[in-house]
Amino acid sequence: MSHSQLIAKKHDQDMTLVSLSSEVIFGGEEVVIIGGPCSVESQEQMDTVAEKLSAAPVQALRGGVYKPRTLPYSFQGLGQAGLEILARVRREHQIPVVTEVMAIAQIEELAAVADLLQVGSRNMQNFDLLKALGQAGKPILLKRGLAATIEEFLGAAEYIVSHGNPQVVLCERGIRSFDNFTRNVLDLGAVVALKQLTHLPVIVDPSHAVGKRELVAPLAKAAIACGADGLIIECHPEPEQSISDARQALSLEDMVALVHSLQPVAAAIGRSVRTTPERQLLAA
Amino acid sequence: MSHSQLIAKKHDQDMTLVSLSSEVIFGGEEVVIIGGPCSVESQEQMDTVAEKLSAAPVQALRGGVYKPRTLPYSFQGLGQAGLEILARVRREHQIPVVTEVMAIAQIEELAAVADLLQVGSRNMQNFDLLKALGQAGKPILLKRGLAATIEEFLGAAEYIVSHGNPQVVLCERGIRSFDNFTRNVLDLGAVVALKQLTHLPVIVDPSHAVGKRELVAPLAKAAIACGADGLIIECHPEPEQSISDARQALSLEDMVALVHSLQPVAAAIGRSVRTTPERQLLAA
Amino acid sequence: MSHSQLIAKKHDQDMTLVSLSSEVIFGGEEVVIIGGPCSVESQEQMDTVAEKLSAAPVQALRGGVYKPRTLPYSFQGLGQAGLEILARVRREHQIPVVTEVMAIAQIEELAAVADLLQVGSRNMQNFDLLKALGQAGKPILLKRGLAATIEEFLGAAEYIVSHGNPQVVLCERGIRSFDNFTRNVLDLGAVVALKQLTHLPVIVDPSHAVGKRELVAPLAKAAIACGADGLIIECHPEPEQSISDARQALSLEDMVALVHSLQPVAAAIGRSVRTTPERQLLAA
Amino acid sequence: MSHSQLIAKKHDQDMTLVSLSSEVIFGGEEVVIIGGPCSVESQEQMDTVAEKLSAAPVQALRGGVYKPRTLPYSFQGLGQAGLEILARVRREHQIPVVTEVMAIAQIEELAAVADLLQVGSRNMQNFDLLKALGQAGKPILLKRGLAATIEEFLGAAEYIVSHGNPQVVLCERGIRSFDNFTRNVLDLGAVVALKQLTHLPVIVDPSHAVGKRELVAPLAKAAIACGADGLIIECHPEPEQSISDARQALSLEDMVALVHSLQPVAAAIGRSVRTTPERQLLAA
Repeated sequence: MSHSQLIAKKHDQDMTLVSLSSEVIFGGEEVVIIGGPCSVESQEQMDTVAEKLSAAPVQALRGGVYKPRTLPYSFQGLGQAGLEILARVRREHQIPVVTEVMAIAQIEELAAVADLLQVGSRNMQNFDLLKALGQAGKPILLKRGLAATIEEFLGAAEYIVSHGNPQVVLCERGIRSFDNFTRNVLDLGAVVALKQLTHLPVIVDPSHAVGKRELVAPLAKAAIACGADGLIIECHPEPEQSISDARQALSLEDMVALVHSLQPVAAAIGRSVRTTPERQLLAA
Repeated sequence: MSHSQLIAKKHDQDMTLVSLSSEVIFGGEEVVIIGGPCSVESQEQMDTVAEKLSAAPVQALRGGVYKPRTLPYSFQGLGQAGLEILARVRREHQIPVVTEVMAIAQIEELAAVADLLQVGSRNMQNFDLLKALGQAGKPILLKRGLAATIEEFLGAAEYIVSHGNPQVVLCERGIRSFDNFTRNVLDLGAVVALKQLTHLPVIVDPSHAVGKRELVAPLAKAAIACGADGLIIECHPEPEQSISDARQALSLEDMVALVHSLQPVAAAIGRSVRTTPERQLLAA
Repeated sequence: MSHSQLIAKKHDQDMTLVSLSSEVIFGGEEVVIIGGPCSVESQEQMDTVAEKLSAAPVQALRGGVYKPRTLPYSFQGLGQAGLEILARVRREHQIPVVTEVMAIAQIEELAAVADLLQVGSRNMQNFDLLKALGQAGKPILLKRGLAATIEEFLGAAEYIVSHGNPQVVLCERGIRSFDNFTRNVLDLGAVVALKQLTHLPVIVDPSHAVGKRELVAPLAKAAIACGADGLIIECHPEPEQSISDARQALSLEDMVALVHSLQPVAAAIGRSVRTTPERQLLAA
Repeated sequence: MSHSQLIAKKHDQDMTLVSLSSEVIFGGEEVVIIGGPCSVESQEQMDTVAEKLSAAPVQALRGGVYKPRTLPYSFQGLGQAGLEILARVRREHQIPVVTEVMAIAQIEELAAVADLLQVGSRNMQNFDLLKALGQAGKPILLKRGLAATIEEFLGAAEYIVSHGNPQVVLCERGIRSFDNFTRNVLDLGAVVALKQLTHLPVIVDPSHAVGKRELVAPLAKAAIACGADGLIIECHPEPEQSISDARQALSLEDMVALVHSLQPVAAAIGRSVRTTPERQLLAA
């Protein structure tokens, strides 16, 4: 990477901090945990998720309202109705929300609700979308493409930053490989490399990486141990009933237990995972 | 693939014919050859290309005016100025032109000039772009993503067709693999599979697949031998001076020689490659 | 590749000719076709294969007697009993035979029967086996490893040649990739590259590459069109009853038809495929 | 995996313990650390390594005497002279040693010295070697092939176990992928899967996985966090002078520091890494 690039880490440079709120900041000492379902399915679903995960706690909720699917006939997300659900859960539970943006035309409505706009793997090199997100005025979660090199991943982030938005979080979510026992291969070597090459925060999505819920927790620990600044993990009130990605979603109970098991791992490398409910923190 | 899909080939079904003009038709007996530079660089460049390739001949000219590049600081194409060049070369040389569309906002202006709108590998699953191209009123050249499965490739085509545009040509252009001796790995097994799975025409881009000009000609022959309905090949008046993809462009002389060498291969499997200049055909 | 390597092609160097008999020579104008089952199963099976394929004809018969299998509990080949069958079919039908060698301890007995000793993909970098085959006194068919780079493939051949055996035929048989619609991805770009990098003959195994019989014939044509010096194709009297690799074996009738369809493709690039039964040639 | 397989983990089954000595046991609560150079280069080199690493400590020393190399002209290891060095360092420093076996003919001499015989990636499916190692009377370290599926990896281990040797340690060492920024991609998802599928211990080689020394330490922590039973790490008195794999070797000082930093990570998941010199333990 050329030294003239905006996202390249110079000697002893401070990490970029990406803030969703005064309490939810990527790139600091605290490892940020995002949880929630693949898709927003109903108000009841999201309320249950928000309530139960307050015991973890998680620092932000995920939930797709526009869903990229291999076939046009598959569930494409609830769209605006889902966005309204997301807005209400955000307001009532006082928790930042993350959702995917698939098109320039969606930016305005999504940015009005979401605290972090996710660019999915399929759109990592949708350069016009990236340029437009440079003007979105919201932090961006950029997921690595399924077969993107580290250089291409950094190049995609550079598009957003060079177009005006320095608030970018990178997300490793597994790359495509030859063995379909796991859905993808989680590339933690890339996470370590990225932490050395750029000052942007780097988080990990172990759920999409392995695609099987029983493999998620150990990989979440591994991600923290190697220096990831956060995790985004799929969970659902009734995982087997999930409309999409049912095979990889944790139950909410397992998600809470996972978060608590992450704290000692973070502590082992001099970082922390929050395990006290945020509402108490807010009250303090 | 489900039999309810629009692009799935049913028993003994006729192939879809995709026409750029009354003489340039993908999916018929004739193998269609597209040639030209990676990027439109100047009017002089494109005039030279059009003139010299009339001796091949080629049935359409390629040339990018909007270029997807890994970094925002690389040459991004001439944009509208390039499009005007493309319009003039199309008019003066009476030859269909192919160019890449990267964003919904570009569709209208590009569709006003181009005879075939190319969706690049990086945008194969840019579903909002695909949906919009379902309404573009122009044939679409859909390139396979760098790590797209055959199922995903067909799913992407289904987005375009199900949104109103049955004129889709698929293009295999190499997939990402572990050996960087060649730029990518040309997956002719996918071409053979696609010809059996869908009634859409399938063409091959050997230039991007191997990335080295000295390897292009034998792969072009292989593509025809296994049943490809066309080829799209990069060539340039001065390959080493090409602004982008210099390493893989053929000289115009080599391109003309290649086209002539393809005819016996096509004949060997009961098809044809045009080797008589089109102007004579038009005069007939 | 360094110019000091034995197998590197120097300017205008002649190709190495690898001869199984006075009539079966790899690396010349004629494209050599090898056919036969994955495994030798019975004398009757091999006699049927030899008889029926004399109408193709094929220039050599393949048939494994030692079989590398993922699990130790799978059929491991008939071993010495299979080798006796192979010896008899070779003698009675006057046709060269090819079989796989998996261990140094098998070289002597196999070399006493086989005209071409195959090193399978799993053993491409079994360097002690390669060194021993340098002293085997028989031509070697070296298959590319599942994830071997071109450089590693050439390095493996160099082991055999530098240990005394210049009679090596390289075989591209598909590399491992992310899409399991085809068993592997046939890398014809590697074939073209190898033909430029080395003076050793290069053949193609389309059967293992795609793993589905309905995809084999078009890829066989593609292999010849791009310059392969031969083909090795699996076929079986009753493909569905094949003990191993049943899904990819052609029927003997389809194999005969395939060979005849290859001749015009070979002719299109100035080469030939034999379509007159060899017995007549021997009688001449 | 079939339940009839010897290495498949049945419900609540105890892990297999693989012992190199009464103090060095894979599969228990303690995470076992192996360190040392790629190749045994001299007695002085190995003495320095053994002395300095006693401060880590490591539980075993690695050092290749037979080296699998892409080209026959590269350094192939010191062979018997190297084995004598290994024997002396083992005796004088009272530490178990690990070295690679490439051929059946080497088993006897290597087994007379080494406490753990390593099968390298290239030989993972060298089935005759695996069968012979079933009779070797020594624990085996089986490294995953560069493109081996989890099923194939387990199948290879089954060959050893079913031929009489239940003392097998599996080692994930990175798989081949499209990005050459790291040498390979460390597949920790496979480690997690293997721990659930088999009762054999599973260790990780982060050095060969990433191929760059500055990336090794964080991945070593990640491996422990996700449940690996041990690590094998390359280090050298003068890394830049290493005859092979110079780019990935840690200095001995960095190796000692790494081991100490691993202990809190192991503790975080209820395991341990030894940080008190073994000589003191022996004296106790």
